[in-house]
Amino acid sequence: MPLQTRLTNTLGIDHPIILAPMDLVASGKLAAAVSHAGGLGLLGCGYGNAKWLEQEFAAAGNAEVGCGFITWSLAKKPDLLDLALQHQPAAVMLSFGDPNPFAPKIKKTGAKLICQVQSLTQARTAAAAGADILVAQGTEAGGHGVTRTTLTLVPEIVDAFPDLPVVASGGIADGRGLAAVLMLGADGVLMGTRFYASQEAQGHPEAKQRIIQASGDDTLRSIVFDISRRSIWPQPYTGRVIRNAHAERWYGHEAELLVCQEEQAQRYAEARERGDFDVAAVIAGEAVGLIHDAPPVAEIVDRITRQAEALLARGAQLIGG
Amino acid sequence: MPLQTRLTNTLGIDHPIILAPMDLVASGKLAAAVSHAGGLGLLGCGYGNAKWLEQEFAAAGNAEVGCGFITWSLAKKPDLLDLALQHQPAAVMLSFGDPNPFAPKIKKTGAKLICQVQSLTQARTAAAAGADILVAQGTEAGGHGVTRTTLTLVPEIVDAFPDLPVVASGGIADGRGLAAVLMLGADGVLMGTRFYASQEAQGHPEAKQRIIQASGDDTLRSIVFDISRRSIWPQPYTGRVIRNAHAERWYGHEAELLVCQEEQAQRYAEARERGDFDVAAVIAGEAVGLIHDAPPVAEIVDRITRQAEALLARGAQLIGG
Repeated sequence: MPLQTRLTNTLGIDHPIILAPMDLVASGKLAAAVSHAGGLGLLGCGYGNAKWLEQEFAAAGNAEVGCGFITWSLAKKPDLLDLALQHQPAAVMLSFGDPNPFAPKIKKTGAKLICQVQSLTQARTAAAAGADILVAQGTEAGGHGVTRTTLTLVPEIVDAFPDLPVVASGGIADGRGLAAVLMLGADGVLMGTRFYASQEAQGHPEAKQRIIQASGDDTLRSIVFDISRRSIWPQPYTGRVIRNAHAERWYGHEAELLVCQEEQAQRYAEARERGDFDVAAVIAGEAVGLIHDAPPVAEIVDRITRQAEALLARGAQLIGG
Repeated sequence: MPLQTRLTNTLGIDHPIILAPMDLVASGKLAAAVSHAGGLGLLGCGYGNAKWLEQEFAAAGNAEVGCGFITWSLAKKPDLLDLALQHQPAAVMLSFGDPNPFAPKIKKTGAKLICQVQSLTQARTAAAAGADILVAQGTEAGGHGVTRTTLTLVPEIVDAFPDLPVVASGGIADGRGLAAVLMLGADGVLMGTRFYASQEAQGHPEAKQRIIQASGDDTLRSIVFDISRRSIWPQPYTGRVIRNAHAERWYGHEAELLVCQEEQAQRYAEARERGDFDVAAVIAGEAVGLIHDAPPVAEIVDRITRQAEALLARGAQLIGG
């Protein structure tokens, strides 16, 4: 008996689970696998590359998938949205910027507008822009985010927008996390790192291995990897990665890193190329400590939903006599 | 039918709720109120003041309370522990430092040793020191803490120490939070800010009012208030407060603040004295956004337990047909 929430109803999916549109990692293959497993896969359109977008929509085949954009980056290449909408995505997710310039166009096609927000203030903007679904992203999340945590952001947004489905994002990698955020009033989860460590994810095997081996103590939020990639984000966004030698060297010394950015950026690009993750960052969230393998997506979805269902069914037993 | 967990069994209490030993705010009156309501009250022994300790144990009367110390501070005044143990506390909580020097003495008296930890690494030290109960404190918490979040730290510690009761701390202020962390595998909650905004708390009415009015977007973690109080903590601890004019002025300018520390410290002390919370910090957690009143403690405990019980009972209904 599957978990039914406003999210499953709104999207017409079996399980209240969305794939985070991780830049490059959330490929057509991964997104299709999540949709085929009963969730919703979102292609990681990230910084935007028309060729990648076409290729990955094609790779997703007949699976009902959506896509996600970095809003401030999309604002520089707005044509990418038209390209994406030609593929009739089930949903388009916007995060990290003002959704207003893009919201009407998305909604007109019938695609659901998912807005990921990192604060109550951003949630107000997204709701006013016409978001169909709000994703409350906590600082636990891998990659870019801000400082508020999932545990307080979710219920605060649920209270403020009782009529909108709210999805929790950041720090969730198992059925315990799904059951927990349902108790907070969420209607589902969006997961990145858990799906990164899957067979289908477009990621380097060594990166997946580092996710499997890391504890939650091993991640940190910084702008070191953005400086090193020559991709500095607008404030207040920083990115969570697994600590490595490069991060340890430059964390707290960002000004110094900027001085030798060119030299370090070349070194960083070369390291990415050859899969040297002592230099290149593995972008992953604090939930790495709950991830111990990289199975097929179908198995991940099955485990999480079964565990959450069992916990919810058992919850009443905690109320003893 | 009350919630029963390993925490209620270990401590012999009715509800799985502990009062955070907030420095000065967690007075004898507040701790007694929490214990009388069926939880466990912990006196905020904080930086340690023998006179305050005697006075507040007396004020707690015949209530079964415990007390909590800042471990690195206790190490400078170890006699305070003997003084506290003379009052036969139900439990002693140690946080922010190595519990090993104090653990044997506490356990010999029959008091439960509660160790609050901020990482998996610290949890290992605490468990090896003989902790009877582990409190996993997330960065959501008001006052001092580190960067890991409750949502991932709790299940990771539960997995690592399956035989120890684990209490979640940071970001919890209502029955949703209690139900959520029970799903994560926790055995109960430790709450500070929620009890700060109560009738019985030893806090300035204006401070309570600011907690009631703030959203979770309004807090931040910094060392500005520590510099301003001439009480700089060892790394990696920082403190979460509600943003005010003083915090906004100096956040990110800590080195500059240190240069004029004497002048600012005097100004800060005067502001605390007269209850000027545009300068003095209200030390509170991200859960402020879930707090809208300052009722009696008994009502807080009643609301939280009833809401959690209702959510747990209803959880099974989410598994629809």
